[in-house]
Amino acid sequence: MSGINPSYRKTGHDSSKTPSDPSHLAAQILDGNKAALSRAITLAESRKKEHQELANQILERCVANRSEQQTPLSFSRRIGITGYPGAGKSTLLEALGMQLVTQGVSVAVLTVDPTGLRTDGSILGDKTRMNELSKHPSAYIRPSPSSKSLGGVTTSTYTSIQLCEAAGFDWVFVETVGVGQSEAMVSLMTDIVCLVLIPGAGDDLQGMKRGLIDMVDALVINKSDGSQIDQAKQTAQHYQQALGWDSLVGSDARPGTSVIHRVSAETGEGLEGLLDWLQKRWDKGLDSGSVQRKRDVTLDRLMTIEASHLVKQWMDSVLDLSSPEWQQAKQHLLQGNQTLSSAVEPILRSLLPSAHRQ
Amino acid sequence: MSGINPSYRKTGHDSSKTPSDPSHLAAQILDGNKAALSRAITLAESRKKEHQELANQILERCVANRSEQQTPLSFSRRIGITGYPGAGKSTLLEALGMQLVTQGVSVAVLTVDPTGLRTDGSILGDKTRMNELSKHPSAYIRPSPSSKSLGGVTTSTYTSIQLCEAAGFDWVFVETVGVGQSEAMVSLMTDIVCLVLIPGAGDDLQGMKRGLIDMVDALVINKSDGSQIDQAKQTAQHYQQALGWDSLVGSDARPGTSVIHRVSAETGEGLEGLLDWLQKRWDKGLDSGSVQRKRDVTLDRLMTIEASHLVKQWMDSVLDLSSPEWQQAKQHLLQGNQTLSSAVEPILRSLLPSAHRQ
Repeated sequence: MSGINPSYRKTGHDSSKTPSDPSHLAAQILDGNKAALSRAITLAESRKKEHQELANQILERCVANRSEQQTPLSFSRRIGITGYPGAGKSTLLEALGMQLVTQGVSVAVLTVDPTGLRTDGSILGDKTRMNELSKHPSAYIRPSPSSKSLGGVTTSTYTSIQLCEAAGFDWVFVETVGVGQSEAMVSLMTDIVCLVLIPGAGDDLQGMKRGLIDMVDALVINKSDGSQIDQAKQTAQHYQQALGWDSLVGSDARPGTSVIHRVSAETGEGLEGLLDWLQKRWDKGLDSGSVQRKRDVTLDRLMTIEASHLVKQWMDSVLDLSSPEWQQAKQHLLQGNQTLSSAVEPILRSLLPSAHRQ
Repeated sequence: MSGINPSYRKTGHDSSKTPSDPSHLAAQILDGNKAALSRAITLAESRKKEHQELANQILERCVANRSEQQTPLSFSRRIGITGYPGAGKSTLLEALGMQLVTQGVSVAVLTVDPTGLRTDGSILGDKTRMNELSKHPSAYIRPSPSSKSLGGVTTSTYTSIQLCEAAGFDWVFVETVGVGQSEAMVSLMTDIVCLVLIPGAGDDLQGMKRGLIDMVDALVINKSDGSQIDQAKQTAQHYQQALGWDSLVGSDARPGTSVIHRVSAETGEGLEGLLDWLQKRWDKGLDSGSVQRKRDVTLDRLMTIEASHLVKQWMDSVLDLSSPEWQQAKQHLLQGNQTLSSAVEPILRSLLPSAHRQ
C-alpha cells in the first residue's frame, strides 16, 4: 500500500462503548483511516464476545475483495523486535520505520507489554518516543493493551497483526520488552525475530538462555556509535565466537543462518544493511516454504492459547463461588486436610461433560 | 514441633516414578522424615491425576489425628519473602532460619521460581546457598519445581505449604524472586509479606508500583552493614517519608501499619527485631481475625486458579489438533480472513456443555 490517506487521523479508542457498523469500519480502514483501524483493534483486544464478533466481521469485510492468490503471505512481513529495556528498541524502530516509509513501504508497529512484569523503561511510552514515525501517513503505531496476561496479549496482538495486514500494511513490527517468556510469544507471532542488545555486558551472553537464542534470527548490537564503536565491535565478535553466527555490517550472510548486525539508530550505521537482510531473509523464507511452515506450526500454539482463554471465560461464567460445594471445599482447605486439586476437582467434574473426562 | 529426627535425611526426588503407599509416607512424614516429605511434595507438584490423589491422601492421613481445635491457624505462620535478585533473600533466610531453629522452632523454606522470567541471580541455587540451615534437623528447604507456569507454581506451592504444616513445621517461608506478578502470587499464599531491598537505588522506590506496595507488610532494607550503613539509613528514611510507614530497628510499631526494617543478614543487626515483629504481627492478626480473613479471601483466588488448571487439563485431553474442524479453522487464519477467537470458538462450543455457554 502506498500512502494511507493522511487526512484521516487516529482520534482515540472510545469505540468499545459505541461499536460501529463493521462494513462501514472496514471501508474506512481500507481507505487508510487509522482511527478506524484503532477502533477495530480495540474491539479485538476486548474479551467480550460481541466485540470479538465485530472484530471478526471487520476483518472478513476488509479481506472480502482480496483475490484468492493474495494471502497475507503474498505481501506482509511480520518482524519481531525484542530486547531488554534500554536497548534502544523504539529508537531503532523509529529509524528503520522512517527508512521504509521514505521508500514508499507502509509500516505498522505493535508494541507488546507483558503486563505486571518489571520493565524499567516505560514500554508504554514507546508510542510517543517514535515521534517522527507516528506522524507519517504511511505508518501506524499501536501501544499494547494494558492489564492483560501474556497469553491474552499474544492472541489479541495476533488479531491486531491480521487487522494491520487487512488494512494493507507491508511490514508489521511487533516490539516487546525481553523478559524471557515474551520472546517465545513474539516468536509465535512473527516470521523473523531480532534481539536488540547494547555494546558490552556480553560476557555472559547478557543472561540469555540457549532456548532464547534458538528463537532469534538476528542479534542487533545497537548504539554502535561515538565512543562505543570499539566496544560494539568487540561485543559482535564475542557473540560471533560464542554462537558461531555470521557477523554483518552489510547484508550478505550464508543462507539460513542467524546473523549479528552492528547498527546505530542514532547515526544510521548499518540500518540499510539490516533492512536489506530482513528483506532477503523473508524472500528466501517464502521461496523455501519456511515462512509458511513456521506460520502453520505456530498457529497450532496460538489456537490452543486462544482455546484456553475461551475455556477460562466459560469457566468464569459457570463457577459459583457462593455455592455450598465451593464453600465446603474451602472449609476443607482452611482445615488443611485436603489439597487444592482434590477440593476443586469434584466441582469441575460436575460442570464438564463427563464423557470427555480423562 | 521440636526437632525432626535427624537420622532421616532427604535422599532425592525419584518418587514420581514409584509412588509409595500414602499411609506409610504419612507416618514417615510425621516421624520427621524429610525425604518422605520431599516425595509427597514431588507428588503434589506433578499435574498427573493419580499423583494429585496420592498427595491428597498423604495430607489427609497426616492430619487425621489432629484435634478439631488444631487447625493450621493454631500453629503455623506463613511468611512471604520477596525482592529483586541480589537483594540477599537467601542469606537473610539463612540467618532468620538459624535464629528460629536455635530457639527450638522448626522452619520450612519453599523457594519459588517464576520460570522463564529473567532472574539474574540463580534462585535455583538458593538451596545450596542456605548451607547451614539446610543441614539443621529442624529445617527443611525445598527448591522450586521447574518448567511450570506462574499459576502452576502457585497452586503446587500452596499444597507444599499444607504438607509442611502437616509435617509440623511452625514457620513456613515462601521465597520468591520479585518480578511483579510473583509478589501477588506470594501474597495469595502467605499471611505476611516482606519485600527485601538493598540500600540505595531508592529514588524511584526501586521501580515498585503502588499495587505492589499494597501487598507488602514490611520493607526489609538488607545489607545494612559496613560502609553501607549510612546509605541504608538514608534509604529507610526515604521510604519512610515516601510511604508514611514506621521505620524500625526494634520491634515496636503502631498496630496494623506496615513497617520498614533495617537489617544485616551478615552482622545480624536487626534480625531479632524483625523476627519479634513478625511474631507479634502474626499474633495480633490472629487475635483480630485478619489472618483468617486473608486466608479465606485468598482461597477463592487459589481455588479459581486451580480450577483453571483442571479445565486446561481437560481441554488438552479433548482438543484434537488433527481434526478436520481444527485444520479448517487454521486455513482461515492462514488466509487472514478470520480472527483467532472466531476460528476457535465453534470448536470449543462443540465440546463444552451448551447450557452453560454465555
